[in-house]
Order: sequence, then C-alpha cells, then structure tokens
Amino acid sequence: MNERYERGWERLMKVDGEGGKGVIESLKEIAPDLGQYVIEFAFGDIYSRGELDLKQRQLVTLSALTTQGGCERQLRIHINASLNVGLTPSEIVEAIMHCVPYTGFPRVLNAIFVAKETFIERDIKVKL
Amino acid sequence: MNERYERGWERLMKVDGEGGKGVIESLKEIAPDLGQYVIEFAFGDIYSRGELDLKQRQLVTLSALTTQGGCERQLRIHINASLNVGLTPSEIVEAIMHCVPYTGFPRVLNAIFVAKETFIERDIKVKL
Amino acid sequence: MNERYERGWERLMKVDGEGGKGVIESLKEIAPDLGQYVIEFAFGDIYSRGELDLKQRQLVTLSALTTQGGCERQLRIHINASLNVGLTPSEIVEAIMHCVPYTGFPRVLNAIFVAKETFIERDIKVKL
Amino acid sequence: MNERYERGWERLMKVDGEGGKGVIESLKEIAPDLGQYVIEFAFGDIYSRGELDLKQRQLVTLSALTTQGGCERQLRIHINASLNVGLTPSEIVEAIMHCVPYTGFPRVLNAIFVAKETFIERDIKVKL
Amino acid sequence: MNERYERGWERLMKVDGEGGKGVIESLKEIAPDLGQYVIEFAFGDIYSRGELDLKQRQLVTLSALTTQGGCERQLRIHINASLNVGLTPSEIVEAIMHCVPYTGFPRVLNAIFVAKETFIERDIKVKL
Amino acid sequence: MNERYERGWERLMKVDGEGGKGVIESLKEIAPDLGQYVIEFAFGDIYSRGELDLKQRQLVTLSALTTQGGCERQLRIHINASLNVGLTPSEIVEAIMHCVPYTGFPRVLNAIFVAKETFIERDIKVKL
Repeated sequence: MNERYERGWERLMKVDGEGGKGVIESLKEIAPDLGQYVIEFAFGDIYSRGELDLKQRQLVTLSALTTQGGCERQLRIHINASLNVGLTPSEIVEAIMHCVPYTGFPRVLNAIFVAKETFIERDIKVKL
Repeated sequence: MNERYERGWERLMKVDGEGGKGVIESLKEIAPDLGQYVIEFAFGDIYSRGELDLKQRQLVTLSALTTQGGCERQLRIHINASLNVGLTPSEIVEAIMHCVPYTGFPRVLNAIFVAKETFIERDIKVKL
Repeated sequence: MNERYERGWERLMKVDGEGGKGVIESLKEIAPDLGQYVIEFAFGDIYSRGELDLKQRQLVTLSALTTQGGCERQLRIHINASLNVGLTPSEIVEAIMHCVPYTGFPRVLNAIFVAKETFIERDIKVKL
Repeated sequence: MNERYERGWERLMKVDGEGGKGVIESLKEIAPDLGQYVIEFAFGDIYSRGELDLKQRQLVTLSALTTQGGCERQLRIHINASLNVGLTPSEIVEAIMHCVPYTGFPRVLNAIFVAKETFIERDIKVKL
Repeated sequence: MNERYERGWERLMKVDGEGGKGVIESLKEIAPDLGQYVIEFAFGDIYSRGELDLKQRQLVTLSALTTQGGCERQLRIHINASLNVGLTPSEIVEAIMHCVPYTGFPRVLNAIFVAKETFIERDIKVKL
Repeated sequence: MNERYERGWERLMKVDGEGGKGVIESLKEIAPDLGQYVIEFAFGDIYSRGELDLKQRQLVTLSALTTQGGCERQLRIHINASLNVGLTPSEIVEAIMHCVPYTGFPRVLNAIFVAKETFIERDIKVKL
C-alpha cells in the first residue's frame, strides 16, 4: 500500500464516496489493477494536485463527461461527487447547460436527465 | 439590434475580445447569421446567465473543447478568454491536465500545445 | 412569451410533436431554461430558417445524431419527426445507412435499431 | 475490373470529381486496396443506391463530416461534391449551420471555414 | 449469392458466431442490405484480408469499439468474437485496459463492464 | 527519480524513441508534470504490463488513435513506435485499414496519410 494509493483512496472517498467505492469493488474479479489505477493515478496523482480546488475540478469533470457522451454511469457518480464537494444543484445544472454551445443539445440533455435522476434519488430540489 | 444581441456583444468582447471579434468578422461573407447566433445565443443567452461566474464558465469551456478534439482554433480563443476573465496560466494548464483521466493524453497534449503557443504569443511564463 | 418562443413552439410541435413536448416537460423541474433554449434557439431560430425544407433538415439531423453516438433518445424523437414532416420509412433507413462509410457500422446499427423500435411502435412496415 | 468497381468509379467521378480521384491516387503506393474499397463500397454500393438522390445524400454526408470533427480534408472534397451534384452554396452553408443545435458551434465553425476556403477557390459568392 | 458474400458469411460465423448471426437476422425486416454489407464488406472484404491474423484483428476491433463509446452492443459481440478466435479473457481485459492513456477511464470502464457481463454469461473467470 | 519513472522512461525510449523524448521536452516549460505522467503512468504502468507484447499493444494504440480522430501528432509518433517494436509497414497499414468498418473511411484515410508521410520520412516502401 504505497503513498499514492493511500492519498488516492482518501481523495476518492472524499470526492466520489460510495459511488467510487462501488466502481473499485466491481472491478475486483475482472480488472483489479484498473481499479488501482483509478485510485493511484486519477485520484492519487491528478485529483490531489493544487492550483484548482475540488469544486473547480468537478466543473471540469462534469464538462468532460457531458461532452464525451455515453458516460452516463460516470456522470451519475460525478454529479454525486459534485454535491459531495460543495457544488449546489443549481451550479451542477448550470455547468452542464453551459456546454450547449460547444457540445450541442443532445449530450447536454442526456447529462441533465442523469442529474434529474440523481437529484430525485437524493431528494434534492433544484432552486429555480 | 435587439437586447440579446447587445448583451451578447458586450459579453463576447469581455470574454473572447479580439479573438471573438475575428470569428464574427470571418463569417460576414459566408454565414453572418451564424455569427449572430454566436453573439445572441452563446454569449447573450448562455454566457450571460448567473449561478457560475466567468472564471467557472471558462473552466467548463476549456474542458469541453479539450475533450471534443479537433477544436484547436476555438481552444486558442478560449485560452485567451480564460486569461481575459482572470484565470492564471497555471489554472488554465491545470484545468486541461485535469482532463487526462477522462479524455486521455492525446487530446490533453493537443490542448496543452495550443496553450503553449498562446502563452508564447502573449509572452507569458507559466509559474512551475 | 416572445416571438422566437412562439415561432419555436409552433415549429417544435410540427416537427417533433409529442416527443418534443415530452422533452420540454421533463425539464420543467430541473432546467426549464434549457427547454426554453430548445424552443427558442433550436426551433425558433434554426428550424425556422429557409433555404432547406423540413425534410432536408431532418436528413441533416438524422445524420448528426447517428454520427454522434449515444443519442438514442434524441434519435427516437427525430425518427418520429422525420415521419411527421413526410420522409418515408425507407428514406429514413436510407439516410442512416448512407452514414456507414463516414461513421462506421456500429453507430449506424445503433440508429437502425432505434428506427426499428420506432416503426414497430407506430406499426409501420418498411417497404423493402 | 468488376461491375461494382466500374459503377463506383463512375459515381465517384460524378460526385467527388477531381477531389475523389486525388484521394485514390494518393493511396496508390501505400494502400491501394483502401482506394478500391472507397470506389467499390462507398460509391459502388452505398452512393449507387436509390431512395435518396445525390443532393439528399450530400446533405447527409455534410452533416456526418461536420459532426465527426477532424475531417476537414474530406469536408473540402464533399463541399465540392455538393456543388457538383447541384446543391447551391447557400444550401451547403445552411446544412452545416443546421448542425449547431446537435453538434455545437466549434465543429460547425470549422466546417464553415472549410466551405469559405472552397468557395473562394472556386470564386463562388454565397447569396446572403 | 456471390463469392464475397459466401466468404464473408463463413468468416462472420467463425469470428462473431451466434452474435453476428443475430445482428443479420435483426436487420431482415428493416434494412437487410445493411446486413448484406456487414457480411460482404466488413467480413468478406476486410476480415478476410491477410497481413494480420484474427487475434490481431480482434485487438484492433476491441480498441476501436472501446474508444468510440456508446457501442456496448457491438462490444459484447466482439468480446465473444475475441474468445472465439482464441484471445484469452486476460488478453481481452488487457487490450481494453491498454486504451486508458488514449481513451480515458470512462470508456475503458464501460468496456470492462461489458466484458465482465460477457464472461459471467459464459461462466469464464479471468486469471488474475 | 522513482522506480515507475525509471521503468517508464526506459519503456518510452524503447517504444516511442526520439518522438516520445520530443513530447516530454516540449512540455518542460509549460506542464512538466504532464510529461512525468506520460512516463510514469502511460509507460511505467500501462506499457510495462504483461499479457500483451509490444507489437500487440501497438495494434491497440494505432486503433485507438485512428478512431479518436484529431490525433495526427500522436499517430505519427506511434506509427514510428510500431516500426520500432517490430511491426512491418504492411501490418501498420493493415491495422489502420481494419478500422474502416468501425470508424469509417475519413478517420482511416487521415491515419493512412500520416503513415504515408512517416514512411516517406524514413524512406520505407510498403510491400504491396
């Protein structure tokens, strides 16, 4: 258990929480090393860097996942993560909507529908 | 000259500055309406909304353009725009680098090379 | 209720019909402004332009959604929309198939399967 | 020289003209079979089908290439091809602009700039 | 029934097996010609070429489908196909994981989850 | 200088050679940590794994870069890398061509043209 792993695990728990833990566990019997890279590289290296705080990082992540398309599962985890680090539901919706001119309506709608389901699950109402 | 256009033009000038003006002008003889939509919709509607400030919006834009790929021209304008609204060169680099786990190295490298050229043009050194 | 909204709503109803109405309603409690932009910009501005008729516009839309990937929900709406504006089932299938050399088989197959489900729902048989 | 090849070559010449010929020739010393598949499959099979005429097919192609991104070289050929089969410059611009709500501004702008260069080369003015 | 069709069908059966047959059958009432092109072009032409053996071709296919995103249905068929032509479960997982630096974690995770389901269906355990 | 870095550097030199070194150097004044991640993660972790040999890994990489689009710079490096680890020019061309049914002609053509330039630079003739 090296330092990057420990730092990454701590960060993964703080950002993604149960959703992140679920991904790592789901990889155990097929590709445990992939889970290790998520922890060590994505969280131990990248998410542990300075210059941007966790709220700023989540804005970047939401945009990357919305734009990429076909990443609904990861979006769900990172919409929860965005709430975990302190973005408000309105800021999350706003960040996704900001992508329309760059990414087009279809992928933005797909992401908004994931946010909608996630907010319903957590019994959150967006302040309109 | 409607209200959305005026608000959009003011916002486009504040965010994209000369780069944005150049895009609108380059469309004049082929698709002036497209330039109008950039002004009215992208800037008069979306960029004029609340909830997120301009620095936050630029983080979302940088991520969308980096992730999409093949948008080097727009990245150049929005790296300049990010500087215009107050993101530091280090924050810009950091936002692009944050995309690696989501978007992969190739598109992140492409975006970093655009940042590098843009910083050289503006005689900016990234604080390492 | 401005002119763009009214024109957009009329056009949305004509093109997307119930499917489009459903999208707008599903946004009401999370991102009503996004629904407004779909109406005002996508339909009030873009879909209301001249030069191309609605059948031609649907050919462009079907190709954009097929090529983009991961937009099955929007494809379903726009396959219905294509029927609404007068494209035949065979022309819809043909437009999707025309994308193979550009977009590859997987995304074309995904789109064709959406068309298949949509035609079954509407009890439509493709003339072979 | 089989029937698909002959039909494809005839069609390639009619649609893409010199641009298409140039692609085939540029493949001669590295991947001549790829050129053969362009002729036989893309043009001998797909472009030779019925249901949609060549103008309609070009609308689909323009949308697929605009949406895909990074296909400027192919867009240039197919903007010329669209002119060859009778689409007007305004219809070509309109088809590309129609992609904005689906594909976003950046890729649409990239495609418009290719159209602009192509029209200048052919000394064509878009009627505004 | 031409030679390309026969060769393609034989190859499709060898590589994709039942999964491939299912695709062709599912196209019968909506786009049988698309099924024919899968057989004749994808398998009769491309998959029947030399220079690379079937295991090598499956590595390329797995990477293309993982990278493209939104092609879970095709991935399932080609993970089965990869087993059919002799790649081990560990090699399949490894090929998908190799895409992380290029394609990012989200699409790689999506592909790994398809592999996981496919292996469970076939009662296969990955040797870790 | 940790173990992952040393292993990654050795591997980067073996696979990418001068091209890889150039990327790392070009990042020195803007994002040296990004270069470090390329070395440590992409090469020290991923490229140093077992199950697949370097030729197999290059097939996966070529496919990922061809499919992704807009990664001509990285393709050039990895076409050279593929030669470095022992793939023949014909196998490289074949791997790229194998992507046609999945990725479509435009991105495959783009990749083939990068291969053509790379082979000319190295004075390599493809055996046809």
